[in-house]
Amino acid sequence: MSAEAHFSTVSIIALGVADLARARRFYEALGFAAGPGSSENIVFFQVGPLVLSLFPRTLLAEDAEVPDDGHGFDGVTLAHNYSSEAAVDAAMAHALACGATLKKKPQKVFWGGYSGYFADPDGHLWEVAYNPFVKVDDHGIVTL
Amino acid sequence: MSAEAHFSTVSIIALGVADLARARRFYEALGFAAGPGSSENIVFFQVGPLVLSLFPRTLLAEDAEVPDDGHGFDGVTLAHNYSSEAAVDAAMAHALACGATLKKKPQKVFWGGYSGYFADPDGHLWEVAYNPFVKVDDHGIVTL
Repeated sequence: MSAEAHFSTVSIIALGVADLARARRFYEALGFAAGPGSSENIVFFQVGPLVLSLFPRTLLAEDAEVPDDGHGFDGVTLAHNYSSEAAVDAAMAHALACGATLKKKPQKVFWGGYSGYFADPDGHLWEVAYNPFVKVDDHGIVTL
Repeated sequence: MSAEAHFSTVSIIALGVADLARARRFYEALGFAAGPGSSENIVFFQVGPLVLSLFPRTLLAEDAEVPDDGHGFDGVTLAHNYSSEAAVDAAMAHALACGATLKKKPQKVFWGGYSGYFADPDGHLWEVAYNPFVKVDDHGIVTL
């Protein structure tokens, strides 16, 4: 178990949204500035040392491999990012040892990274991820 | 409209939980350290410049004045903290002007602060709050 497996921050808050363009307009109007990597498919806001992202709700549910039937899916996920696939595996093992429920075994995913999901005791979803396209420091802090 | 009314960060992520002691054990096992102000009724984790809190789900729903019936309540709220009641009012006015839906008009609340809630276009709940018991800087960054 590496020290990095421990959770001490939140790297990303992902909000599942029905209409990405609408949600982006809303958050930009509020005062958030869309950052690098934002597109027609996903939007990222750098908020201090963490990232708030907007992602189509159906795709967020698919990404976490949970049904989006109004039950058991918040439409919100929290993420902790790591600097390697091995660190993701260690983090997932650690979470499961803590009593988390495995929702998606860490695996290579379509966007080029490596990610898994677990649920906390209340069903809140956490993603543990390695994203080769972002910089992440030893504290899980992501820079877009 | 003060510049402070604009949103450029997330101050607090609140997770609604069924059993606070169970949730605290889980998050402490993961690696989070409960911070000042944590009690049998609420738990706070300082995570870099933001705060992750655990709060009984029924009370979180009550606090936001939304039904906790499995529909329309994520069990997750995001908060932006401000340094005065007037700043909260300005922030809410700004959010409503952006198309947010008012869920709870900013008001004095039982815990000694002043707070309101709005929903984003997807129903995700944001609290705008003044908490006289925490330090908040001009960027909405809270220190426990």
